Amino acid sequence: MFSNDYLSGCHPAVLEAIVKTNMEQTVGYGKDDYCEKAKYKIKEKLQNQDADIHFLVGGTQTNKIVIETFLRPYQGVIAAETGHIATHETGAIESTGHKVLTLPETNGKLTAKQLEDYYEAESHNHMREHMVSPGMVYLSHPTELGTVYTKKELQEIYQICQKAGWSLFVDGARLGYVLNDQISDITLVDLAKYTDVFYIGGTKCGAMMGEAVVIMNGHYQKDFRSMIKRGGGLLAKGRLLGLQFDCLFTDNLYENICYEAVQYALQIKKAFQEKGIEFIVDSTTNQQFPIVPDKLAKELQLNFGFSMWEKIDENYTALRYCTSWATTTKEVLELIDFIHAI
Amino acid sequence: MFSNDYLSGCHPAVLEAIVKTNMEQTVGYGKDDYCEKAKYKIKEKLQNQDADIHFLVGGTQTNKIVIETFLRPYQGVIAAETGHIATHETGAIESTGHKVLTLPETNGKLTAKQLEDYYEAESHNHMREHMVSPGMVYLSHPTELGTVYTKKELQEIYQICQKAGWSLFVDGARLGYVLNDQISDITLVDLAKYTDVFYIGGTKCGAMMGEAVVIMNGHYQKDFRSMIKRGGGLLAKGRLLGLQFDCLFTDNLYENICYEAVQYALQIKKAFQEKGIEFIVDSTTNQQFPIVPDKLAKELQLNFGFSMWEKIDENYTALRYCTSWATTTKEVLELIDFIHAI
Amino acid sequence: MFSNDYLSGCHPAVLEAIVKTNMEQTVGYGKDDYCEKAKYKIKEKLQNQDADIHFLVGGTQTNKIVIETFLRPYQGVIAAETGHIATHETGAIESTGHKVLTLPETNGKLTAKQLEDYYEAESHNHMREHMVSPGMVYLSHPTELGTVYTKKELQEIYQICQKAGWSLFVDGARLGYVLNDQISDITLVDLAKYTDVFYIGGTKCGAMMGEAVVIMNGHYQKDFRSMIKRGGGLLAKGRLLGLQFDCLFTDNLYENICYEAVQYALQIKKAFQEKGIEFIVDSTTNQQFPIVPDKLAKELQLNFGFSMWEKIDENYTALRYCTSWATTTKEVLELIDFIHAI
Amino acid sequence: MFSNDYLSGCHPAVLEAIVKTNMEQTVGYGKDDYCEKAKYKIKEKLQNQDADIHFLVGGTQTNKIVIETFLRPYQGVIAAETGHIATHETGAIESTGHKVLTLPETNGKLTAKQLEDYYEAESHNHMREHMVSPGMVYLSHPTELGTVYTKKELQEIYQICQKAGWSLFVDGARLGYVLNDQISDITLVDLAKYTDVFYIGGTKCGAMMGEAVVIMNGHYQKDFRSMIKRGGGLLAKGRLLGLQFDCLFTDNLYENICYEAVQYALQIKKAFQEKGIEFIVDSTTNQQFPIVPDKLAKELQLNFGFSMWEKIDENYTALRYCTSWATTTKEVLELIDFIHAI
Repeated sequence: MFSNDYLSGCHPAVLEAIVKTNMEQTVGYGKDDYCEKAKYKIKEKLQNQDADIHFLVGGTQTNKIVIETFLRPYQGVIAAETGHIATHETGAIESTGHKVLTLPETNGKLTAKQLEDYYEAESHNHMREHMVSPGMVYLSHPTELGTVYTKKELQEIYQICQKAGWSLFVDGARLGYVLNDQISDITLVDLAKYTDVFYIGGTKCGAMMGEAVVIMNGHYQKDFRSMIKRGGGLLAKGRLLGLQFDCLFTDNLYENICYEAVQYALQIKKAFQEKGIEFIVDSTTNQQFPIVPDKLAKELQLNFGFSMWEKIDENYTALRYCTSWATTTKEVLELIDFIHAI
Repeated sequence: MFSNDYLSGCHPAVLEAIVKTNMEQTVGYGKDDYCEKAKYKIKEKLQNQDADIHFLVGGTQTNKIVIETFLRPYQGVIAAETGHIATHETGAIESTGHKVLTLPETNGKLTAKQLEDYYEAESHNHMREHMVSPGMVYLSHPTELGTVYTKKELQEIYQICQKAGWSLFVDGARLGYVLNDQISDITLVDLAKYTDVFYIGGTKCGAMMGEAVVIMNGHYQKDFRSMIKRGGGLLAKGRLLGLQFDCLFTDNLYENICYEAVQYALQIKKAFQEKGIEFIVDSTTNQQFPIVPDKLAKELQLNFGFSMWEKIDENYTALRYCTSWATTTKEVLELIDFIHAI
Repeated sequence: MFSNDYLSGCHPAVLEAIVKTNMEQTVGYGKDDYCEKAKYKIKEKLQNQDADIHFLVGGTQTNKIVIETFLRPYQGVIAAETGHIATHETGAIESTGHKVLTLPETNGKLTAKQLEDYYEAESHNHMREHMVSPGMVYLSHPTELGTVYTKKELQEIYQICQKAGWSLFVDGARLGYVLNDQISDITLVDLAKYTDVFYIGGTKCGAMMGEAVVIMNGHYQKDFRSMIKRGGGLLAKGRLLGLQFDCLFTDNLYENICYEAVQYALQIKKAFQEKGIEFIVDSTTNQQFPIVPDKLAKELQLNFGFSMWEKIDENYTALRYCTSWATTTKEVLELIDFIHAI
Repeated sequence: MFSNDYLSGCHPAVLEAIVKTNMEQTVGYGKDDYCEKAKYKIKEKLQNQDADIHFLVGGTQTNKIVIETFLRPYQGVIAAETGHIATHETGAIESTGHKVLTLPETNGKLTAKQLEDYYEAESHNHMREHMVSPGMVYLSHPTELGTVYTKKELQEIYQICQKAGWSLFVDGARLGYVLNDQISDITLVDLAKYTDVFYIGGTKCGAMMGEAVVIMNGHYQKDFRSMIKRGGGLLAKGRLLGLQFDCLFTDNLYENICYEAVQYALQIKKAFQEKGIEFIVDSTTNQQFPIVPDKLAKELQLNFGFSMWEKIDENYTALRYCTSWATTTKEVLELIDFIHAI
């Protein structure tokens, strides 16, 4: 129930759009009008008409194709050790010939200072050509630990990337969960300004499947469709992706359904906090990581779904509770009641 | 209307299954019960419980991941020059480090004789280690030109593959269109017997998207899921694929809807033939390639969709008419009327 | 004796340079003074100080690293079907993710017309993103069949490459054998003007091993050393390569020893011609391909080394006779005597 | 002078062999008699006739081709964080699609315990297919820090590799420096018994260039030559490598010249120790890493070559002194005198 944010199909409004258009005949591979409409709406939100938008099916596929497009063969991509590309993509990035250059994380995040230091060290390294050169920085926003970057942090990181000649890529698999200004001061307009490329996650945010890649850096827009096809990511019935994003970007559906999910997550967080339970980080989004005694973990497991995150010590385990657009008030209240009764 | 077989969404029965299960919560990445049920039904059809079945999203992705799994790094895959992997996958196979070794086609097909000759030449080649060694044979059934292999041809090709130590891979992107015994004497049971791996196409045969890979060779079954994930092909909500195949493999829906499409194609074929129009090959499946005067091509284009296939000479062009499970009697009759009136 | 041009070690002057400097201690990886001196001398010959020169160990390695450097991931390299990268490099180019796009050859050569046609077809292809885009043209000069391009042909090919946005790469594994103006009107100065990158072959032209890559296109000069290291081509004792080229580019040694070899080849050619024997092409360089009756091939084999090139028909075989800087007058005279006595 | 072990050309005996055979004509690509002789001598030392031996040019090339040969696409190679493949090969391993899975080092070494733990964690990981699976363990012997494995450690590591189904690969770039039983109790016979593949380094141990790969695991011996050619590592004049190893494996030249170098290194070590200077590890081989005050580092730099290894703190730097077969008594004595005079 709370084990992840891709348990259910898609938001009813998205489903309705799919059903309604099912027997329409459209041209394939994302050249249809639904894709055009979705791109138009996204560009409006970005307040930027030069954005180049493409729809892919899933996150790993997107990371892989984007990173391969932006790097020269001898370059690697800098990521936090907890970054999805560094841990849970079965070497998809390496499969394209690129090393993931990991740096220690702080609450799941990288800092401008770390990148500045890396750049300095690299610039003065006489063994430079014997080592992988960084060519891109990969951030997740929100991070794999549910934390968020501030606009100031993003700007500073972008600045050092610009100085170093590195591209900045923001993985927004869960971007919907941070688009409310109560949660983060980074808007879609900011992402368009302060990144070279980012993606707006659909799979975990109301779509059946699909991620919208937004390429801001003009140098890499050309022939990205060839990269998608080569990478096995060009969906024949591309309109399925377009019409889902068209729907999600109508009347703020995308932000709204995700914001609700975050509210649920914060209620769960509060319930744990009231019991004096601590968390591995202070997450303000739809993922919460309470550290509970193993005995309690077992009891919770009998009644509610969640993920075992990591063993903290002999007696304690961190759990991950994940809400989504599909979470119901009833599910949340039951969990909270259970926590209260501990 | 006849320009390809992925114009529409999915068969209404498939859509209904998706709608009905939309809010169910299942485990991700294809480990759900719908995938299990679909695998069970397919294995029944194969009359083989040792088959290892996986659901992927699209054809190029499937070809790429399967071929990479079966080949050693220095090996290539033999294909007809018209093979999809040789022409229309933007180098997806090469992106995994493997050369596509093309041989001339006869009606879109390879022959056992060609492969035997290749094997003989290779065996005696003292420059062997300076050249790409074949490690797999790739067939499309039906082919990109709508032709079919006979069971005997398949058996002979499998035999030489066995002798040479090559794997045999059948791309069944349009397999549904040849599963009726009026069209081809190769059954799913035969494919399970006489190949190392093949796939049952969903995207062009009634599903919204999805291809079912069937690995018969036990040596390559292990860890195929890791290959899918690495290749960016592991769908988070994997059940979407499973339940589509579950539905298509219930009450012979898969064969039936495709068989009907072939009937339509044969009616279109007959209409052209009655006008003395010739074809680039004698296709007995859902794709037909009439060779028409350029003037006629233009007239047809005004009224009906089709693909320009290739310029034959100064005055003639080959067209491709493609029917599908979504083709209607009305569409076919209108086209036939038009042809009659030429 | 005549089976190839890498039978012996290196030219005595080169060997002397290696021996003389053996116990010197120099910095590694090609940053030593010998490499600097060699680069200086080559740049003088090119009459171009902006050339970026690197020394690699062998031809396949060089082709692989150069091509990978110049192509975007979705691009391929155009080559004649007889091009070395298309036939005898065990898929080294594909191992870097790139397809070799072959065109029919005429006497081992590509024509500007072929490339122009390819470009036109590509420009109008609405399936462009489903196919590998060309990004480079690969020529061998002299070709694998011993033929040579004219300056006019090179210029025309360069022109179409410029127009199409493709890089032009000339494989000069046997470049030494065409640097005399009796053989070809293309000079090193021309190569520097009309290519994006080329290499000056050492292995087959007097060096123990080594190829000098000359990068003219400024866009790809940066970080080429990283590409070499990543490709396993950065020789620890890089000076070994530098001092060989330093030696070969002193007093025209490179051209002179190769020119002599060509003279020998032409004498052999003439001897065969006087017997009415035909050749597969009219080669004017150090490789000659007479077509002889199988019986004669066997007799020749008993007395002199050569390569079996290809079976022409039931009774005839094409042979390859290859001279080199190491060929002696005695060897040539014995062969000619034998031919005369046929 | 002491900055690395590839400053000079090759041992005089090796040079003599090259000079003596320079004008001989032999078949190319390592199929000559010198390679055969060298293989024979090495097999004698290994006391194993089933070893499959190949000669490559350099270390990065060797690591890359060996690792790519042994791994399935979704697998990675475990190495110490200080392992050469993890730090100084510009992503050569990643360029073949494989992740280097780093573990913390202890004196530059991995322990059987670490590997056992990794194996246990992996076996129970339900996210297994989302992560890179280990397929090989990479050890350097001696390590990049000059330390050595004991026979017992090697056996234990091999045992866990066998249990886990991982290959064990020993990088012997400096193997010559540990073949004396005063230094390590691991013999060539042991390496043949307790590894799947290892290499005997030539470049740093008396050869001009060249590494001898020894493949013990029969499963990977087939077609390794194709892998070498594809990887750009098949030297045209392969005999150059064969005859160097033939020479080095005659009368124990290889071990003897390296043993002498180690004696020099130990004398330098002792001189530093007598001054109370500490080392980053207790190296017993040809590399020594004293930690000296920055002021002393500068003085030393004026008089003798060495490498700056790493900054230890604000005031101290670790240096690397490296002896080799080419180091002379005079050089060592001068350095020692200088140290005494500090």
